[in-house]
Amino acid sequence: MNVIPDSHRDLLDTQCATLATVGPDGRPQLSEVWFLFTEDTVRISLNSSRQKTKNLMRRPPCSLLILDLANPYRYLELRGDAELSPDGDYSFADQVGAKYGANLRDHDRPGEKRVVVRLRPTRVNAVNMGG
Amino acid sequence: MNVIPDSHRDLLDTQCATLATVGPDGRPQLSEVWFLFTEDTVRISLNSSRQKTKNLMRRPPCSLLILDLANPYRYLELRGDAELSPDGDYSFADQVGAKYGANLRDHDRPGEKRVVVRLRPTRVNAVNMGG
Repeated sequence: MNVIPDSHRDLLDTQCATLATVGPDGRPQLSEVWFLFTEDTVRISLNSSRQKTKNLMRRPPCSLLILDLANPYRYLELRGDAELSPDGDYSFADQVGAKYGANLRDHDRPGEKRVVVRLRPTRVNAVNMGG
Repeated sequence: MNVIPDSHRDLLDTQCATLATVGPDGRPQLSEVWFLFTEDTVRISLNSSRQKTKNLMRRPPCSLLILDLANPYRYLELRGDAELSPDGDYSFADQVGAKYGANLRDHDRPGEKRVVVRLRPTRVNAVNMGG
């Protein structure tokens, strides 16, 4: 139930994933995010001023969809509760930056902070609808 | 706020979109769906036995993300409240089937029913993060 099958593990190397959080009005909110996947955990670096970060602080249940861009009938959905922790020195943000060839400080304004979002999937849906 | 800009209208021809609903436990649920877009309205044909359909019956607020498969930094997010109506004679399901070269009856088991999900976006986020 929470194991990513071999058939879909290649998707963990995908560039972006779709993160779903739930807003204060109960509406799901979607956006594309960069992510790292190690030790069965998804990690995402978010700016604490963003709505999705505020949503996760208030309501940790979330879901991440990783789509096969070459065949959108194949994807992984990972569900779990987000665990947030501060990343004041950008040590995790720099790991993400190294993967993507970017400096995440360039995405932030003065006074904004970084947090690490950890998602340990409690449910995995590995889908292949053919196509 | 609820207008799809010309820069992103091509995405309405994308094959699949990611539909986010909220489950009874408050967790967002994601899946890929086929869709039609006409007259500023997204229409989706769902089987009434599916969890996402039950979620929308209980909680209409939903969101749809349409990703540029060639550039996942560019996408449309459409938010709104789903309006469900019966499609007992498969007349809408057959329109979807015509677009996708499929017979949606083949996806259903005896006794299952089709519904039309209409999403008139009340908020549109047209994103282009470059790449």
